[in-house]
Amino acid sequence: MRNFLLTLLFDGGAYHGWQVQENAVTVQETLQNAAERILGARCPVTGCSRTDAGVHALGFCCCLRAETGLSPERLQAALNAVLPRDIAVGGCREVPLTFHPRYDCRRKTYRYLVWNGKTRNPFYEGRACFYPYRLDAPFLHAQAQAFCGKHDFSAFCAANGSVEDKVRTIYAFSVEREGDLVRFTVTGDGFLYNMVRILVGTLLDLQAGRLEAGSLPAVLESRDRARAGATAPAEGLYLVRADYADI
Amino acid sequence: MRNFLLTLLFDGGAYHGWQVQENAVTVQETLQNAAERILGARCPVTGCSRTDAGVHALGFCCCLRAETGLSPERLQAALNAVLPRDIAVGGCREVPLTFHPRYDCRRKTYRYLVWNGKTRNPFYEGRACFYPYRLDAPFLHAQAQAFCGKHDFSAFCAANGSVEDKVRTIYAFSVEREGDLVRFTVTGDGFLYNMVRILVGTLLDLQAGRLEAGSLPAVLESRDRARAGATAPAEGLYLVRADYADI
Repeated sequence: MRNFLLTLLFDGGAYHGWQVQENAVTVQETLQNAAERILGARCPVTGCSRTDAGVHALGFCCCLRAETGLSPERLQAALNAVLPRDIAVGGCREVPLTFHPRYDCRRKTYRYLVWNGKTRNPFYEGRACFYPYRLDAPFLHAQAQAFCGKHDFSAFCAANGSVEDKVRTIYAFSVEREGDLVRFTVTGDGFLYNMVRILVGTLLDLQAGRLEAGSLPAVLESRDRARAGATAPAEGLYLVRADYADI
Repeated sequence: MRNFLLTLLFDGGAYHGWQVQENAVTVQETLQNAAERILGARCPVTGCSRTDAGVHALGFCCCLRAETGLSPERLQAALNAVLPRDIAVGGCREVPLTFHPRYDCRRKTYRYLVWNGKTRNPFYEGRACFYPYRLDAPFLHAQAQAFCGKHDFSAFCAANGSVEDKVRTIYAFSVEREGDLVRFTVTGDGFLYNMVRILVGTLLDLQAGRLEAGSLPAVLESRDRARAGATAPAEGLYLVRADYADI
């Protein structure tokens, strides 16, 4: 048995997230079907996290366990030949059998894209949230620094989240504008259910005046989901990378 | 009667080009239907050029003639509300009735995108040509300067082109790399049928060694379509802008 660490890019628009579900097409299932076609056997695939329906990835990590003589390069090329066009394997390497893509993950980086032009952009349809009112990126960047550090993020977790420990550490949060595109980028040791989308939605509410400037430390402190902002739509969210200690 | 100059962005993946055809959905028809829904009458729409099936636009210009009291801003907003998500009106202004978007066009700029990574990229699927062999952008840029100036482009025109005069002037041609994306950008006073796609396809053939470095002036001179390269796929092509004299 060998263990391959794959890095995936996918446009999540057509998928009900990563994890296998009944009656819905997911990325995990699509990858398992592709692997079965190549390797002739059902191979277990484990992801670095769940993702919501419609969420995208530039560097989603997962492990594929298989009995095969294929080199990582050949396995990658074979998977890319049979996977649908909205999923690609950007990297593939062999890792120890003890390696686990979720438990061994040290930190993850997500990006959220907002198309902030006056009119919608067909090329960001389903790939960015369209928000036509002007965002002040330096202001939002400054406000968002309140998220950095080790905090209880209960106020920024969907009510149906099942995790008990809601303390997470955010290492960096940036908000940058490039033309009419605004990028929110956040790196942390882990993220609660819907957390990135609520962090971004809260910043949008702050911009719109529904929350007061400087109020984010108090919102965090409250641990009250009702004090934070709306959940931004899934279509703007990208898992950019998962980082591991030297394997 | 009033005449409105619209600037369109569209992802052409779902369309059989600009011009109305029987038994195929086109951008022109889709826009006319949207205008009819808003204005209650069939309004003629004229484009700055034809485009092939699958070609995209960041700044396609067209004129809409209508009897309406709407301001350009209101007309733009109304069209954006009813157009499908892969077409948007980025600008709208009133122009004299004598203005014609094709005959009055002084120059056009096209861009061609090549995804030049080792593996295909789901986010450029249908929006760039995937070419996995490394392109030397500075080399191609230097070679492409042979296209600049006033030439007979018969060698770079699809055989079924119907235009008699095949002399065109290219003002600028650039080839630039940004990461794994290579951008070909060309500005000229006009373009023959499939011309940009053949210019790019010829540069790709040059890179692949199927044409000799320095041979482009001789290919131009020959006026022989068989001496030029393949026609690059439509999916990488974008009409970026059409320029007019002061209106």
